Order: sequence, then structure tokens, then C-alpha cells
Amino acid sequence: MYQAIIKEIPEQVRPLFNQGKVADYIPALGKVSPMKFAMAAKAVSGEIYYAGEVDEKFSLQSISKAFAMILAIRMLGDDLWQKVGRSLSARAFNSISQIEEYGGRPRNPFTNGGAIAIVDLLLTHDVHYLESLLILVRKLTGNRKIDYDRSVAKSEKEFGHRNAAIAYFLKSYGILKNQVEDVLDAYFVQCSLAMSCNDLSRSLLFLANRGVDPKNETVVLTPQQNRHLNALLMMFGTYDGAGDFVFRIGLPGKSGVGGGIAVIVPGKMVIAVWSPALDEFGTSVAGLKALEIFIEKGDLGIF
Amino acid sequence: MYQAIIKEIPEQVRPLFNQGKVADYIPALGKVSPMKFAMAAKAVSGEIYYAGEVDEKFSLQSISKAFAMILAIRMLGDDLWQKVGRSLSARAFNSISQIEEYGGRPRNPFTNGGAIAIVDLLLTHDVHYLESLLILVRKLTGNRKIDYDRSVAKSEKEFGHRNAAIAYFLKSYGILKNQVEDVLDAYFVQCSLAMSCNDLSRSLLFLANRGVDPKNETVVLTPQQNRHLNALLMMFGTYDGAGDFVFRIGLPGKSGVGGGIAVIVPGKMVIAVWSPALDEFGTSVAGLKALEIFIEKGDLGIF
Amino acid sequence: MYQAIIKEIPEQVRPLFNQGKVADYIPALGKVSPMKFAMAAKAVSGEIYYAGEVDEKFSLQSISKAFAMILAIRMLGDDLWQKVGRSLSARAFNSISQIEEYGGRPRNPFTNGGAIAIVDLLLTHDVHYLESLLILVRKLTGNRKIDYDRSVAKSEKEFGHRNAAIAYFLKSYGILKNQVEDVLDAYFVQCSLAMSCNDLSRSLLFLANRGVDPKNETVVLTPQQNRHLNALLMMFGTYDGAGDFVFRIGLPGKSGVGGGIAVIVPGKMVIAVWSPALDEFGTSVAGLKALEIFIEKGDLGIF
Amino acid sequence: MYQAIIKEIPEQVRPLFNQGKVADYIPALGKVSPMKFAMAAKAVSGEIYYAGEVDEKFSLQSISKAFAMILAIRMLGDDLWQKVGRSLSARAFNSISQIEEYGGRPRNPFTNGGAIAIVDLLLTHDVHYLESLLILVRKLTGNRKIDYDRSVAKSEKEFGHRNAAIAYFLKSYGILKNQVEDVLDAYFVQCSLAMSCNDLSRSLLFLANRGVDPKNETVVLTPQQNRHLNALLMMFGTYDGAGDFVFRIGLPGKSGVGGGIAVIVPGKMVIAVWSPALDEFGTSVAGLKALEIFIEKGDLGIF
Repeated sequence: MYQAIIKEIPEQVRPLFNQGKVADYIPALGKVSPMKFAMAAKAVSGEIYYAGEVDEKFSLQSISKAFAMILAIRMLGDDLWQKVGRSLSARAFNSISQIEEYGGRPRNPFTNGGAIAIVDLLLTHDVHYLESLLILVRKLTGNRKIDYDRSVAKSEKEFGHRNAAIAYFLKSYGILKNQVEDVLDAYFVQCSLAMSCNDLSRSLLFLANRGVDPKNETVVLTPQQNRHLNALLMMFGTYDGAGDFVFRIGLPGKSGVGGGIAVIVPGKMVIAVWSPALDEFGTSVAGLKALEIFIEKGDLGIF
Repeated sequence: MYQAIIKEIPEQVRPLFNQGKVADYIPALGKVSPMKFAMAAKAVSGEIYYAGEVDEKFSLQSISKAFAMILAIRMLGDDLWQKVGRSLSARAFNSISQIEEYGGRPRNPFTNGGAIAIVDLLLTHDVHYLESLLILVRKLTGNRKIDYDRSVAKSEKEFGHRNAAIAYFLKSYGILKNQVEDVLDAYFVQCSLAMSCNDLSRSLLFLANRGVDPKNETVVLTPQQNRHLNALLMMFGTYDGAGDFVFRIGLPGKSGVGGGIAVIVPGKMVIAVWSPALDEFGTSVAGLKALEIFIEKGDLGIF
Repeated sequence: MYQAIIKEIPEQVRPLFNQGKVADYIPALGKVSPMKFAMAAKAVSGEIYYAGEVDEKFSLQSISKAFAMILAIRMLGDDLWQKVGRSLSARAFNSISQIEEYGGRPRNPFTNGGAIAIVDLLLTHDVHYLESLLILVRKLTGNRKIDYDRSVAKSEKEFGHRNAAIAYFLKSYGILKNQVEDVLDAYFVQCSLAMSCNDLSRSLLFLANRGVDPKNETVVLTPQQNRHLNALLMMFGTYDGAGDFVFRIGLPGKSGVGGGIAVIVPGKMVIAVWSPALDEFGTSVAGLKALEIFIEKGDLGIF
Repeated sequence: MYQAIIKEIPEQVRPLFNQGKVADYIPALGKVSPMKFAMAAKAVSGEIYYAGEVDEKFSLQSISKAFAMILAIRMLGDDLWQKVGRSLSARAFNSISQIEEYGGRPRNPFTNGGAIAIVDLLLTHDVHYLESLLILVRKLTGNRKIDYDRSVAKSEKEFGHRNAAIAYFLKSYGILKNQVEDVLDAYFVQCSLAMSCNDLSRSLLFLANRGVDPKNETVVLTPQQNRHLNALLMMFGTYDGAGDFVFRIGLPGKSGVGGGIAVIVPGKMVIAVWSPALDEFGTSVAGLKALEIFIEKGDLGIF
């Protein structure tokens, strides 16, 4: 049934491919075609449902923050919350004014400021953070070829003035311990993680299974940690668009400006979708619609 | 099992009774003792678990907005969203600056501005709105004695300058159709709804049952409407405290400055708790802790 | 020489009559023709220079705040500053968010919030405030026919929801001592003061003469009070447009949404101009240009 | 008479030396003693009045922005205003949120963001900007030993994360044409200009003399340019403290976090004062009081 639903979705959302805007603040992202589309739903039971180019890699960008948070929750526990809040953000993911307004403290771990602060914390605890992250992601996907895209990271470094501003701003408040350049470099590399919808839906499956990877019974997070990460994704995963996202989708999810979205259906599956053109909140327009259709038709809501 | 858990909670949270602050912006609320406590969980299956003074009435205040939304969703459908947003609020429930910042449009239906705009819409569609609301609430609770507390409403009218400011502000942007005084009067009366934890957990049970009241099979909301209302409660129900609330509780809920909180456990139950002393977000301190304990021990999380 | 300069100004600024927007938030102001123009410069030495309809009355609106401040400075002295700041305002004169941002304290006496707080203070000290103001203004103009325009005040009361919002908001912070309705009524009546450019330039002449009315040697303000009022006019008299106003004009001034502007040339004269169409800051477009020409050609700058 | 007034001022303001806080965001400034004091008033007529250590150099910091503006006004004319506003700033000089709020456009040339944008414009027009500035300042002071303090500039570069954040932020909006690092380096060097109160009062004397240096009849600025620069100093020279500054002082002035303040008395003199401890707006506490006393007793107000 799910496969029957999903296979019709590309046709249904195609009219939306040109209604958003491909992220173009760095050239490496701007050259991706808005006509790309993929959707993959990996069930806890092992099945996979898919449509479109599900093996084509795309740049995870902010979706990588979800993986960083797995490490942060495991390594830092509650210390994590000393430098980053758990507060709603009513401004864009790259807003700097809300950091000033709250005295230098990023609102939550998924705003750019919060994610940069998390990278700083992780670097402090683990000088090989980027390697550790790659090991984690390869294990979660079961795909040893997953890697950073260094050309995207380089492009971010060259054109990412806004993120540089945020990092220097946090440094001025004493939020960052490491050198700004080092934190930024690691952040840009982290965000350059590239994988396919197949990989992505596979990798986060533990989130739908109380923290345990159903393929190999590995405990990725404890049940409580797993609840926490899902809650964070639900409230902050789509930034100032989260109110509307949860109204329409009703599930925890994470978007990235590469056009990807991952959504967790607790107890059932993880859905990954990719379509590069974005709405005002940096969320894929066609991807969001595709999720809405699939969840509605598949009766996957939790409320 | 749930009863065994719940009966120990009053002792566990008692040390918190004095850590918050009883709302005192109107005298009628300020005179309630911070030592009051009640908790009732009504299951879809019919059982009820409880502790404390579960039959003592308290002022619903903002929890009444959930009932107003039932009528608004049924009467207005998507027209509802013409005057009110579905956007996160990073400011307090009675912030007026965020209304100015967004050109007169309240961020969401549960901020005071949004709730006042909803009352205006309801009054426009139904001159007997307050009677209609009472009929609904009496039916949902199965308690014909549920009523407004006119002395609280009068006190609000006398001292509620902040809400008056919000209403006049919305009027200046053309958001309100009716006379400001009429909208305010209705809003104050709506917020004065008084009921017990027993009543409250009973009345919202349909939200945990896909929109159907399990006692009498009445369809209160369609499944989609029900998902929507739960999503709105989760994202906006506890204002700028929602990020932390959902991190700790992981479920949709609604708080009121009377000290009540209602939480929906989809498929299972509705929990109502009451303890008058509030945290900085206007949420009951001991009530929030009580919910956290009950949900953790009862393994009621959905993620 | 000044007369030669001034008499050519109406022709020079006529093209601007349609470039602004006549205030229309109340019908009583909206019906004034944008083609009206008058300019009068009254010198300390007694001469008067003029052009246009200098005897036609217009609604002072916020220019009335300058007269209120004369009474406030005389009656209250430094107590004045307990409830109102001396801080720049980067938002519009009717912004309410900047009041919230600063904890209920109006930024300065010329924002609407500040002016309403001043009226409240004056009412507390003098129940006959409106009569006292009229006596002052009639004395300063030497025109016993100066009066409030009750139809304008009534229109403000009917449509001035924004000012009502500000007043209720201040009340919620305890800034206002009197009943909101009474303060608003007095504020609306004060703003309805009507006079001609001839009257206006005459009435403020003491400000250009170290506080002494040169016609009759009456001490209106002490030299220090006079410096203070001029400083307040310079920094706050044209709201968030003050930066540009002072760049172009270089002198203290006060604008009103009735289209009037009064400018003080210390030691020399007071210039009043009237043209109803306003810029984004609520300042007369043609009036501002007329002042710029007159001051430039007349070499009236103080810097 | 002025000398009699000024020589008593150090005693009068000494109690304030410990009431402010010496800037300590960079070590090079933090080590200056709060007990330092100097005041020098240079008259257009040639006299000089002084008290304290008037030949001891201090770091100009933001006062250097006044010199940069001389070059900017001369080189760029009205093009200057394409990238920088003439708008009041209600936030601190180093606020970044107000830049975001206004779409990347600095409010005015004296906020840090505005000054950095001006340095970028100057660098674009003149690769030898820093040399040109030094030539100008040496000519205006008549002191060939005036120089940058490279140790201060280096310290700023090492610890000036906030200014780095502002510069990267402006770059992200396309406001800066040059490389961020180059602009920041030049900005830090410019701010490190060091001179004494004697030098400072001498150097800005043209501002009190319609743009002409009275010592040598050199035209530094045209009369109109001179009026403009005085107006900018008055409105923006002391940031969000300008409202109170002008209320108390009534004259154009410029403060720096090195503890210096320069004030222009049109037609008469320029007063420079230095005392390192600062108020919340970054203005010298004792310096401001010293100016207030001198201007009051010397009857130097222009209003």
C-alpha cells in the first residue's frame, strides 16, 4: 500500500518544482537542478518504499545537525544545555539578532548559531570530531562510501559570510572555546555531508524505534535520549517554519537547504525526501507537499 | 499501575509548590493557595487515575482557548487562518511587540492576541458564542454544572489592561470586526471557565481518540481536524516555553495561568493537573514536574 | 531679504504637494486638501516673513506636545523623567513594541506613548489641565480665539485604536495613574489644538530667545529649561526621522500629522510651515523641503 | 574666565572617576588608569583653556570616526549615503541586531557597522586610506608626531570578535566591497589613532568655524559639509546615549571607548576631555560631567 501511494507522488508534486527557490548563497548548491526528486520511506520492519532518484546523493546541509546531535547527546548529556537553549525561534535559521536579544545564547541546537556552538562543544571533547561523525554516519547507513563533499565545504568557507558573522558573534560572548576559524571549518565540513534518500531514511531509523537500530539491534540512543532528540526535531527542526510544518505533517522532522527533509514516524518508519527548491523557511516546497500526501494517505499521523 | 504511580506524585512535587508564583495580575486569581494540587488521568478505555483535590474547580484561563479552537475549527475551517498565523512565538503569551513586528497578525491562536482574534471571528459567526461554548463544554465533560465564573471575568475586565491594549492594537490593524469592548468582554468570560481536573481530563478525551468521544462515540472533530488541534497544542500550547515543555513532556498540552495543564497522550489518555504556582512562561511548576514523572514512569511518550 | 526668499518657496515646493500622503487614520484629517500651503517666520526682532495661507488654521496634532512640555517642565521639573526616558526612538511615533522592549517606559516625551504619559502626569497635578494649556497657548500666541477642535478630538476618540492600545499598555505597566479613558480623552483634545502658521511661529518665539517672549518680556522658561526643550525637540521632535531631519535642517523642530512643522532658529526666529501630505515619518514632505530652502538661502544654520 | 572655570573642574569630577568602567574588551585599553583626567578647550580666537594631563595621549577609538567622515564627505559626497543610513540608533554602538532589522544597512556612520562600511568605501576609493587619514590628522593638529598605536590595533584584531562579526555580517549583505580581513585591519588601525586633549581640541576646530581652520584659513569642509558633519555628530555621535547627551550638553560631540569626548561649540571653540571610566553607552562618566559644568558655567549653549 505504501509503495502504491509513494510511486504516484512525483507526478503530484511536479508542479511545485518551480515554485520555490534553489539555495544559491553558495555556487556549489545553486547549480543543482530544481527538477530533481526522490523519496524513500524505510520501515522499522525492514521494507522500503520509494520513488524518484533515491540513490542520488545530495548535500545534507542542516540535516547533518541531527547527526551532530546524536554525538552531542551521547558525549555531553545535560552539559549540552549550558551553552544552547531549548527555546523556540521566531526568526530565520541564520538570524543573528535573536542571538543578541538573548545575550549571546543561541535559542536552540538547530539554528545556525546553536549548531555552531554544538560543533565547538564537540571539538572540545573530541579533536577528531569530523572523523567520529563519519564513522557514526557510515555505521547508521551501512554505507561505507558516505563522505563529506569537500568542494561544497570549500564553497561555504568562501561565501559563508553570514555563518562567519554568527561564529564571531558567539565568540564575542564567550560561547565558543575553540578558534573561530577551526569551528567554522568543522561546521562547513559537517554540513557538506552527502547522501541519498535511501541512505538518509536508513540512517535515522533508530529514531522511529526507541533509539535502537532495528537492522542490527544496536542501541544508538537510550529511550529517553531518543524521545529528547525527536522532541527537538519536532520543535526546532524546521526553524521558524516549524509551526506550519507540524500543523501539516504532525511529526518530527529536519530540513536542509540542500532540499532534503527527513521525517520520523514513531514506531513505523523514517521518510526521506529530496527536491531542491525551497520555501521562505528553507524547507523544500515539493518535499513538504510530498510528505503531506504520503502521511495523509498512509494514515501515518500520531495524533 | 497508573494509579500506583499517580498517588505518589503529590508527595514528590510538594517541594515545588512554593517555587513558582501564583498569578496575581487580577485579585481573583491571586488569592488561590499555592498548596492546592490535583491530578487526573482519564483513559480512552474508561479508567480514571487520580490524586489530590480532583473535584475542586479552578479557573481554566488559557486552557479555555483549546475549547474555543474546537468551535473555530468546526465553524470556520481554513478561514480561521486568514487573521491568525501558525507561527512559533518566541515572546511571552501577552507580548504585543511581536504583533507589531508581524504587521498586526497574531503569531498563532494561543497567544493572547491570537485568542482574542479567534473570539472576534467566533462572535462574528455566532452572536451567542458564549452560550455555544458552554453547551459544548458541558457536553464534553458530561457535567451540566460547568459554568463561567463571572467574578473572575469582572476582575479581568477591571485589571486586564494588557489584554485591552492587545485588543485595541489588533483593532487598529483591522484584525477585529466587532467592537473592542464586546470582544474583550467575551474573551474575559471565556477565560473564566472553571472546572475540576476530573472534568478537564474527561472533556478533552476525544483529542486522544482521533476526534471521537469514547464515552458516547460523538464525533467532536474529524481525524484531520483532530490532528491539527493536537499539532497546534504541541507547538503553541505553552507559548515561548513550548520548546522546553515538549523536550520534557513530549506530548501536546495546554497551560493556563490558573495553574492547570492538560496533556494529550494519543491513543491512550488525557491528563489534567492543577497547581497554582507558575514558572516564567505561565506554566504550573509542580504541574509540569508531575506530568514529567507520570509520563516517564508510565512510559507514555510517543517518540 | 528673508521675505524675498520666502515668497518664492510655494512655487518651488508645489511639485511635492502630491508626493506624500495626507494622514487619513481619522476622517477629520483625511479631508484636508494636499494643495494647502503656508509658511511664516517670526523674528525675535519683531519682523514676520510669510507666504501662502498663513492665517488658515490647521490641526497641530503632535506639535501640541511641545506646548504640553512647557507645562510639564514648569510643573514637574526633573520628576518628569521618572516615567519617561530621554532616549532615541528608532521606531515610528506610534510604535508599541519599543515600549515593551524597554519594560513599559516610553522612550521619550514626543513618542505617542511618552506624550500620553506626560498628559497623565499633568492631569494628576492639575485637574484643569486642558484649560491651563489653552490659557498658555492663547497667551503665547496673543490670540484669544485659539481653541481645541472638538470634532477632530471626537474623531480621534472614535478611530484612535492605536493610541488606545498604547494607553492601556502603559496602564498595564503602572505608568498611568489616572483612568485610561480620561487620559486618552485629554490627549485627543490636546492634539486637536488648531492654529495658523502665524499663530504657531509667534507662540514658540520664546524658544529662540532663551525662554523669554520678546514681545512682552514674559519669562516662559528659564534659560536652562529653554535649552532642555530645544534639545528635546532636536533629538525627538521628528521621531525616527530625526536623523535625516537634523542632517537637512540642522535645527530643533516639531512635526505633526496635520502637516505642520515648527522650527527654532536660536537667537533669530521661529519658522512655521504647513503642507498636509506626509512622508513615512509623519513629517510634511513639502514643509520639510520649504524649511530646507529657507534655512539654506537665509544662512540660518547654527553649525 | 573660561580658564578659571576649567581649572576647578578636575576636583569637581574626581568623585566620578570610579563610577564608570574602563573598557576592558581588549587588554590594551583595560590597563589605563581610571584616575587619568584631562580637558582642553581651544577657541576659534586662538586661546586655549586647560586642566589635567592635556598632553598625554589616549586612544581615540570611535572619535577617529569623525576624522574618517571628513575624508568620506570630501571624497564621496552623497554617494556616502548609498550604503549607510542617517537614522537614529536605539541600540548600542556594537549592536548587530539593528543591522539585521534594517536589511543589512547600518543605521548611521557612527555605529560600528556604519563606520566599518565607511572604511570599506574609503578603501575602495583610496588604497592608501590609512596614510591619507594620518596626513589629514597631522595637518589638522599641526603635530607631525600623531600616529596609530599598532599595539592597540593588534589587540583589537586579536580580541575584536564582535567587530569581526559585524564586518562579516555586512559582507553577507553585500555592503562591503573589499575583503573582510582588509576592512577590519584598516578599521582597527584607524581606531588606534592616539592623541592628547590638546591635539584633539585643536584638530576639530574647523568644525566650530564653518569648516575653515582658523589657524591657517585652510578650508577643511565647505559650510554645508560642515553643517552636515556637526548634525551627524549631534544625532549619532554618542549612539543610543545621544538623547541624554544632547539634553545635558546641547552641542554636537563624539565619544570613544578610550574615554575621550570632543564637543563642538559653533562659532566659539572645541572642547576635548578625557577620563577613561565609561557609562553604559560607552561615554566617559567624568568627561560628560566636566563638559556639563564647563558649558553651563561658561554659558556656551546654543539653544
